[in-house]
Amino acid sequence: MKKFFGLLMSFVLVLSLVASAVSAKPKEKNDIFEDKSMHVQIVLFDGFDLLDALAPYEVFAAAGMYSGGAVTVELVSAEGKRSVPSGMNGPALEAQAALDPNRSGIILVPGASGKPAGNSEDAIPNILRQANETGLPDMMKRAFENKNITVATVCGGSLLLAMDGLLKDRHAVTNQIGMAALGALGAIPVNARVVEDGPRFVSGGGVTSGLDVALYLVERELGPQIANAVERLFEYERRGTVWHAEGIAPIDFKTSQKASKEEQPAVVP
Amino acid sequence: MKKFFGLLMSFVLVLSLVASAVSAKPKEKNDIFEDKSMHVQIVLFDGFDLLDALAPYEVFAAAGMYSGGAVTVELVSAEGKRSVPSGMNGPALEAQAALDPNRSGIILVPGASGKPAGNSEDAIPNILRQANETGLPDMMKRAFENKNITVATVCGGSLLLAMDGLLKDRHAVTNQIGMAALGALGAIPVNARVVEDGPRFVSGGGVTSGLDVALYLVERELGPQIANAVERLFEYERRGTVWHAEGIAPIDFKTSQKASKEEQPAVVP
Repeated sequence: MKKFFGLLMSFVLVLSLVASAVSAKPKEKNDIFEDKSMHVQIVLFDGFDLLDALAPYEVFAAAGMYSGGAVTVELVSAEGKRSVPSGMNGPALEAQAALDPNRSGIILVPGASGKPAGNSEDAIPNILRQANETGLPDMMKRAFENKNITVATVCGGSLLLAMDGLLKDRHAVTNQIGMAALGALGAIPVNARVVEDGPRFVSGGGVTSGLDVALYLVERELGPQIANAVERLFEYERRGTVWHAEGIAPIDFKTSQKASKEEQPAVVP
Repeated sequence: MKKFFGLLMSFVLVLSLVASAVSAKPKEKNDIFEDKSMHVQIVLFDGFDLLDALAPYEVFAAAGMYSGGAVTVELVSAEGKRSVPSGMNGPALEAQAALDPNRSGIILVPGASGKPAGNSEDAIPNILRQANETGLPDMMKRAFENKNITVATVCGGSLLLAMDGLLKDRHAVTNQIGMAALGALGAIPVNARVVEDGPRFVSGGGVTSGLDVALYLVERELGPQIANAVERLFEYERRGTVWHAEGIAPIDFKTSQKASKEEQPAVVP
């Protein structure tokens, strides 16, 4: 019995040592993120898409809750405090303040909600065109020039910026139905759920990729523990590798097959 | 050359026959869904969760767009037309009308947004308790009695109904953090992303499962083609098998191991 008790105590000792080592590790790693905080401005414009804007909003709000206030998030518009109607006759949201392109943090631009194609007033291209005639493009130009700001987009948000020439030669993604247009507008379309072009521009694909854009930015700015807590609360797991122009680029088999065909002499039987 | 042309024409003929057979098939299947339409009421209450309510809202709105108006969706409240604040000091949404428990279709109840536990005013259990003191429970009781209504919930929405005793002995799911409470309130908790208890009550798990609840209901009421179009637009694929009490039930190995131990005589060496 005494021997068993001795064994048990050694086991408890080992366990407690292991436990302290495990609990020490996160502390070490947290140092990179110590005193980190982020402010997020989500830009509303007439005809914006509800989910594009509010899925990231809620990820950032929950991250703020779990971090004891290290993340703050607000809805803004180019015109300041006003009620902004969403697309497809959807409900309006109140922008709390004017977009401030001098404020450090993240500025997220959602896409529009409407008919995916066509020339009607409620077609997405027309809604984006109208947003482009407001004060928004100038403000976003200033945001891109500010080294303390990361610009993020969801869905048609990247098209909106590309229309102003702000994404010239930048890697970006948008909803699958807008990828050709994104290329035609001077951006470099990349087929990924989330694309990071340098550290200061992050774009997401269709509607629900806003969850992935926001979760990625939460992890990047505050570490993986807060992002994981939000994922568990939302019962969602971030999807897809965040593409950025680093590491080995994969062989493009369409191009390389063509190239090797051209190089090889024709085989005549 | 003539032979080649003949072959080509036969090939074109076969192709066109195949194509007409393919295009005929959906028509046959569509008959079940012919002239189908659905109206969806999404219930707002003070402190509701934005995504729980708006992810399904946007799925139904997009389904309406793709079906040429076979789906209509509106935001409602027990008190009628009013501005309803979301939880965690989030933005308010305008309820367009009073919840009508006599109107055929779907009534969807979202959960609350706030601290996942605790006794503070902004803790989820307290927000749900306050919603229960409004006219909502009586209206939902009448909705459950109406054979032309399907009640759907997302996240804490099922807890809200369970608090009123409306889910007694019904299969349901809620956010993982609320599953024990759901059982304590008389429901039968089922670990699935979407649970269908008979055809007139469908519940979803945490926040983002609202996408799956709405996509399932769109498929059930209007067929898979509209649901698929919405999935592609949103770049989201419905997740998980919709659980319902049919077919073979899986062996519960925790229970059966215990049972077989008890049945077998102890083995003495």
